Amino acid sequence: MKNVPFKGVIAYPITPFDTNEKVDIDLFKKLLERLIRNGSHGIAPLGSTGVLPYLTDQEKEAITEATIQQVNQRLPVLVGVSNLTTERTVHHAKFAEKAGATAVMIIPMSYWKLTDDEIVRHYDTVAKQISIPIMAYNNPATSGVDMSPALLKRLLEIPNVTMIKESTGDVQRMHYLRKELGEDVAFYNGSNPLALAALSAGAMGWCTAAPNLIPELNIALYDAIQENDLRYAQDIFYKQINLLKFIVNKGLPRAVKAGLAILGEEGGNLRSPLKPLTDIEKSELKTILEKSKHGIENVIG
Amino acid sequence: MKNVPFKGVIAYPITPFDTNEKVDIDLFKKLLERLIRNGSHGIAPLGSTGVLPYLTDQEKEAITEATIQQVNQRLPVLVGVSNLTTERTVHHAKFAEKAGATAVMIIPMSYWKLTDDEIVRHYDTVAKQISIPIMAYNNPATSGVDMSPALLKRLLEIPNVTMIKESTGDVQRMHYLRKELGEDVAFYNGSNPLALAALSAGAMGWCTAAPNLIPELNIALYDAIQENDLRYAQDIFYKQINLLKFIVNKGLPRAVKAGLAILGEEGGNLRSPLKPLTDIEKSELKTILEKSKHGIENVIG
Amino acid sequence: MKNVPFKGVIAYPITPFDTNEKVDIDLFKKLLERLIRNGSHGIAPLGSTGVLPYLTDQEKEAITEATIQQVNQRLPVLVGVSNLTTERTVHHAKFAEKAGATAVMIIPMSYWKLTDDEIVRHYDTVAKQISIPIMAYNNPATSGVDMSPALLKRLLEIPNVTMIKESTGDVQRMHYLRKELGEDVAFYNGSNPLALAALSAGAMGWCTAAPNLIPELNIALYDAIQENDLRYAQDIFYKQINLLKFIVNKGLPRAVKAGLAILGEEGGNLRSPLKPLTDIEKSELKTILEKSKHGIENVIG
Amino acid sequence: MKNVPFKGVIAYPITPFDTNEKVDIDLFKKLLERLIRNGSHGIAPLGSTGVLPYLTDQEKEAITEATIQQVNQRLPVLVGVSNLTTERTVHHAKFAEKAGATAVMIIPMSYWKLTDDEIVRHYDTVAKQISIPIMAYNNPATSGVDMSPALLKRLLEIPNVTMIKESTGDVQRMHYLRKELGEDVAFYNGSNPLALAALSAGAMGWCTAAPNLIPELNIALYDAIQENDLRYAQDIFYKQINLLKFIVNKGLPRAVKAGLAILGEEGGNLRSPLKPLTDIEKSELKTILEKSKHGIENVIG
Repeated sequence: MKNVPFKGVIAYPITPFDTNEKVDIDLFKKLLERLIRNGSHGIAPLGSTGVLPYLTDQEKEAITEATIQQVNQRLPVLVGVSNLTTERTVHHAKFAEKAGATAVMIIPMSYWKLTDDEIVRHYDTVAKQISIPIMAYNNPATSGVDMSPALLKRLLEIPNVTMIKESTGDVQRMHYLRKELGEDVAFYNGSNPLALAALSAGAMGWCTAAPNLIPELNIALYDAIQENDLRYAQDIFYKQINLLKFIVNKGLPRAVKAGLAILGEEGGNLRSPLKPLTDIEKSELKTILEKSKHGIENVIG
Repeated sequence: MKNVPFKGVIAYPITPFDTNEKVDIDLFKKLLERLIRNGSHGIAPLGSTGVLPYLTDQEKEAITEATIQQVNQRLPVLVGVSNLTTERTVHHAKFAEKAGATAVMIIPMSYWKLTDDEIVRHYDTVAKQISIPIMAYNNPATSGVDMSPALLKRLLEIPNVTMIKESTGDVQRMHYLRKELGEDVAFYNGSNPLALAALSAGAMGWCTAAPNLIPELNIALYDAIQENDLRYAQDIFYKQINLLKFIVNKGLPRAVKAGLAILGEEGGNLRSPLKPLTDIEKSELKTILEKSKHGIENVIG
Repeated sequence: MKNVPFKGVIAYPITPFDTNEKVDIDLFKKLLERLIRNGSHGIAPLGSTGVLPYLTDQEKEAITEATIQQVNQRLPVLVGVSNLTTERTVHHAKFAEKAGATAVMIIPMSYWKLTDDEIVRHYDTVAKQISIPIMAYNNPATSGVDMSPALLKRLLEIPNVTMIKESTGDVQRMHYLRKELGEDVAFYNGSNPLALAALSAGAMGWCTAAPNLIPELNIALYDAIQENDLRYAQDIFYKQINLLKFIVNKGLPRAVKAGLAILGEEGGNLRSPLKPLTDIEKSELKTILEKSKHGIENVIG
Repeated sequence: MKNVPFKGVIAYPITPFDTNEKVDIDLFKKLLERLIRNGSHGIAPLGSTGVLPYLTDQEKEAITEATIQQVNQRLPVLVGVSNLTTERTVHHAKFAEKAGATAVMIIPMSYWKLTDDEIVRHYDTVAKQISIPIMAYNNPATSGVDMSPALLKRLLEIPNVTMIKESTGDVQRMHYLRKELGEDVAFYNGSNPLALAALSAGAMGWCTAAPNLIPELNIALYDAIQENDLRYAQDIFYKQINLLKFIVNKGLPRAVKAGLAILGEEGGNLRSPLKPLTDIEKSELKTILEKSKHGIENVIG
């Protein structure tokens, strides 16, 4: 049996910056603690939400260590270690393992579109240098390469590639993974607006930045599916769909930061060229958040 | 309250041709009777499956009359009356109403991409000439125009446009329809591989040619959703997904005809330029059908 | 050597309707005469511009006969005979030949996406029933099927398929046709904004509705290329690019009709669901036309 | 008048690596010298061809200095300084200016899709810190963001943004730039297979890695256009189109390295995950190169 240490709602923290655009580790830990206390089933630093590609090696290492320390074994930790070069990916994967990560997530970043063989060799090289499991992540919108189901199948033949995160937003990919790769394959949804469809299709978990803003609704959706209560899951989903779409459309780091401010929480600054939402966008988000909160009281409270 | 006479599995018959490529009305009635007896909740002649655009006006009228006669009020009948010109659409809509159709389905066929205003005027002109409800059908792959959610909202303001069939295959459209247009809006899924996701999202019915081949599985899926049993729905769906994908990929008229032959049923000929599946494709279909049938026994029988 | 009776600017007339949306043959002939007198090198009735798919069989036949009669052998005539069914395509191709057409143009219309084999068989069936040459027309935006260069190569093996009209708007297709199929292959540009690039790439002609409005500029562009004067061709092209883009974006029948009115010419009505341009669009067209006319005087006059 | 120091064929060197995947500066200089001697009109290190995003800051600086030194004012030098963060982009732009670069090239790299305002602010921040001109580079395939013509227009309002490189491969963008932004705007073609169409449309230069392999053909094409000899330009273009398509399809660094080996030149290694072409691909490239060389003799020699 493959080593699959994640299920449920896997929460993605943002990486906050101070006014000089330096990483603010203290604030990062505070934001992490919120996610843990609000019921997330796993924590995933250095994802897209955490603006991984905008950080230096030293910053990535500091974030990795801060996460392991703050989580302190209360939840499994999935560290993003993706890099354009194989050499740097190996470096960060080894660092994460040594620091105590439960698993690493790797997306095949590509400036030059990689061939299938290059991608397999990339994962294989990293996999041989670590003992913890790898989640292969498919997100053509950010990586520039769309890993076909056939390629994902090849990656799963590497012993410690045990999990797949799919963010194309196409539910047919979920069907393929389940139908063709067997019920054993652990696949996770990375497309927020697809949460209901993906969990209905059998996804083992949901990788999401939404718990920074509406953790109760996210977890209630997952629980409803677990309890085989589709009708309730549908209700809960329609309470959060507008928020899920908004944060994806505006970019997760920008939207989460703006949402935290609306909730009265400190979220820090962004690193340029990323800039805050406009006032109109913030006001739109405020309305959506309030309606969602109202939904929480009605449905859960 | 809007007049919404359809729910559940709405079955689409093929239009069979004889060896001279003339419509075979007797065989059509036999195929219709199979669909009725196998438990369909509605019948929809002259859809894409029924190769509507390849027929003459006289042939369309003969099929309409044959359907009403054969169904004989046992089920509601949804007649396709789409045409490139408004004048012909009105003609066929009036004919269908007079013949006894429960409702008509209209897709905005477009050689020249229509503007939103032209589409609204097209539906409005037809709607004013009939009293039965209209199902507006969105399928950019065949019509050449993708009706935005905003346009669908405008169409629903026309009193007898009461139903929407969505075939883009994007579950987010379903979410929009339910969330933005309210729980009253009756929307139907027209994309076979999206059946589980669409019904999970609250679709009122499923417009499909699949009951020509695997009616038990199609109806069992709908029933499981009705009984709020997601886990069983998922099982049932994964038994039929390969068949659903196959018939869509190969073209419904070709695939249904080939499937009928495999099941030992007479399905007639196609009209040129459409040609039968190749032997390799037929053999692939045979394997998929057999596995589905095995699925039926295991899950239902 | 293949029979290739067309080169240069092949002009597409609109099909005008009267106030009852009936075809107005007298007006059609008047519009045809303008195109002939303004220097077009060929005439192509029943194209997209002529709203072929919105016409009845009788109307198509009347237009065919009116064209042959009016042109009266002054120019070669290319009659559009495309139809969804093979049987009707054969019918209209034979009619056109008998009426005196120089060649026929056939696009593989497809409601159900046709396979390559079906398309080849479709063309082959028609080709065997006529002696005049066939222009194969690729325009995925209106036909729903994109014929690959490999498929076009197969079609050219049919003896009387001697010409290819490419309307994808991708100049790389032109390069392929010239490079892979040899200098003998006669290919024509059907994408107006691609006129300069296509003629620079070696296209033998330009199939266009623009001569209804700016014949001098269209013909001057072709002539400049013939005279190997790229710099002048570039100048002439930039005088007309805005008009070419406008008529494509708004739909050729709508835009040509509006342009004729601006020029003080009778253009008749459209057939529903097609509707006239809005006042704002007409005013935009007026400005573009005036600037083009100014361009003509400066460059040519 | 804007400061536009480039025209003609701007050659992109690869960045060669040794067997330990370290940058090989000596070999880089040798490759640079070949490009200079073979007639290029400008040199552009640290482009996509030079695998900019796979290099460390130190490596980028070493390449910049080596280029300035080797070129030694024989040709203008365009240094790529793009980076995900604004801070690093400023750093490298200032470094390039100080080192003696003629201009810098900046593509708005984006992991998170940038808004138009963010992109303008990004360029503006960099522009204010340097005095040399900036070439704004649009290539959605590698940057993840497609700068609209309207956005490019805004960028050109920044005083030292004086040049635009377009790599979408859509010739209509060239038309827009010339028509809407005026004859003053210096735009360059970055899509190799579009070379003929772009130069015919008035592009001021061609940014290309092809001179690493077929400099005579590249320069002959540019010269023919300058001499207003379209017919010869067409001939020359068709001699090289297959090579241009091949190097783009296979990825410029991989293809150029393989091509150099075929020509008997040392090209060094690639950095992982990028891997060499397969033997079949190399053999295909050999055939294409030989046919091109034959073309050179026939047409030029």
